[in-house]
Amino acid sequence: MTIPTAAMLTIGDEILSGRTRDANMPLLALALGEKGISLREARVVPDVAEEIVAAVNALRARYDHVFTSGGIGPTHDDITADCIAAAFGVGIDVREDARAILATNYANPAVDLNAARLRMARIPDGATLIDNPVSKAPGFTIGNVHVMAGVPAVFEAMVAGLLPKLTGGQPLLSGTVQVLRGEGIIAGPLGEIAREHPEVSIGCYPFNRGGVFGANLVARSVDAAALADALAALESLKVSVGG
Amino acid sequence: MTIPTAAMLTIGDEILSGRTRDANMPLLALALGEKGISLREARVVPDVAEEIVAAVNALRARYDHVFTSGGIGPTHDDITADCIAAAFGVGIDVREDARAILATNYANPAVDLNAARLRMARIPDGATLIDNPVSKAPGFTIGNVHVMAGVPAVFEAMVAGLLPKLTGGQPLLSGTVQVLRGEGIIAGPLGEIAREHPEVSIGCYPFNRGGVFGANLVARSVDAAALADALAALESLKVSVGG
Repeated sequence: MTIPTAAMLTIGDEILSGRTRDANMPLLALALGEKGISLREARVVPDVAEEIVAAVNALRARYDHVFTSGGIGPTHDDITADCIAAAFGVGIDVREDARAILATNYANPAVDLNAARLRMARIPDGATLIDNPVSKAPGFTIGNVHVMAGVPAVFEAMVAGLLPKLTGGQPLLSGTVQVLRGEGIIAGPLGEIAREHPEVSIGCYPFNRGGVFGANLVARSVDAAALADALAALESLKVSVGG
Repeated sequence: MTIPTAAMLTIGDEILSGRTRDANMPLLALALGEKGISLREARVVPDVAEEIVAAVNALRARYDHVFTSGGIGPTHDDITADCIAAAFGVGIDVREDARAILATNYANPAVDLNAARLRMARIPDGATLIDNPVSKAPGFTIGNVHVMAGVPAVFEAMVAGLLPKLTGGQPLLSGTVQVLRGEGIIAGPLGEIAREHPEVSIGCYPFNRGGVFGANLVARSVDAAALADALAALESLKVSVGG
């Protein structure tokens, strides 16, 4: 069974300035792992049309899915929907179904649904809407690109609604063995274990807590039996460690 | 005065799995902003040689600086130094100055500096070392690529030592105006302010705190006078707001 691949594209000057930490990438990564879709690349680009278009086209050509975050609100710096339309070479306009959904968010749509807010109902031709149970303004899917909001609560809700509709592969299973020895000591035998278990990805993440050196050895695989074998081998590093 | 540009490349399966949050990107972004270097793109790639080489070559051709994080430890999954050498088409081997620095980290280097740890002294030909005051194992700079550790305390210390040696531009200045109104209401006049201040980048970051809708309006510029003008205009959104 093949594992579908994915990339995430985060759009926004506020992430690149360091002012805002991107909470959406780790959230999506964990959700995709459970779904059996492998996140293979993440990019952050500024609110610049050419950069967004180029990144969307590079990533959608290469991965089974592209998930974007940010830039679909009502203000002047929200240019993602237009950039997606440009990337696909399709038109974009206010769509009636999106406008109707958006209208349900306002007490008096005739007044409240002003020109700025109506921008949130502009959908590229041929896209399908992604539900936003938090604040109504929908995301959308066009081709293999899923366009979602940057506000974390909205992004999370959109992901929760979208992922069940996608075809996943085998979920990526993982296990962790914590070893209270420096990674430089276990590196040799650890490398042998990694070579002996090619179907398991093994990572070594060192730490130093109050002067105690250790490492979390994380094994990941879609094959439960292979993962169990690798974890048993990693357990042995707790005791039988050479110089 | 031109502003030097930069990209960050984070290397590591643990970031793409969602297991570990990348703290290094926001740290670097803020430090670069103070230095007057503009972070224009960030990428995360897995521990796969071809992916690392391709990303390094794409980014170093495009930006004045590339900063990498991760993959320079002693274990089998630490392949960054070799990938950098491959990207530049140069050789790589244990270098005596790096070995001597590394040796100072161990009580008995003749025994403790085993084959795995010696990998941390493998430096691509022509690189200069980046100091690691935390755990000795150095980073390095080759061409316009600065290769640093993924462990946040080490990354931070390396950045602190490296940045004073780089030529910065004018520091990016910023100011924030908080408006307790929905972004859909202020979007129209906000867009006008953005158009009237082309030398200032203005972002709108909405929030909903306990049912109160508001937005942080963040203005950024290297021009202090232009920034002050824009912030004064943004202050007006607190009171004189149309429908």
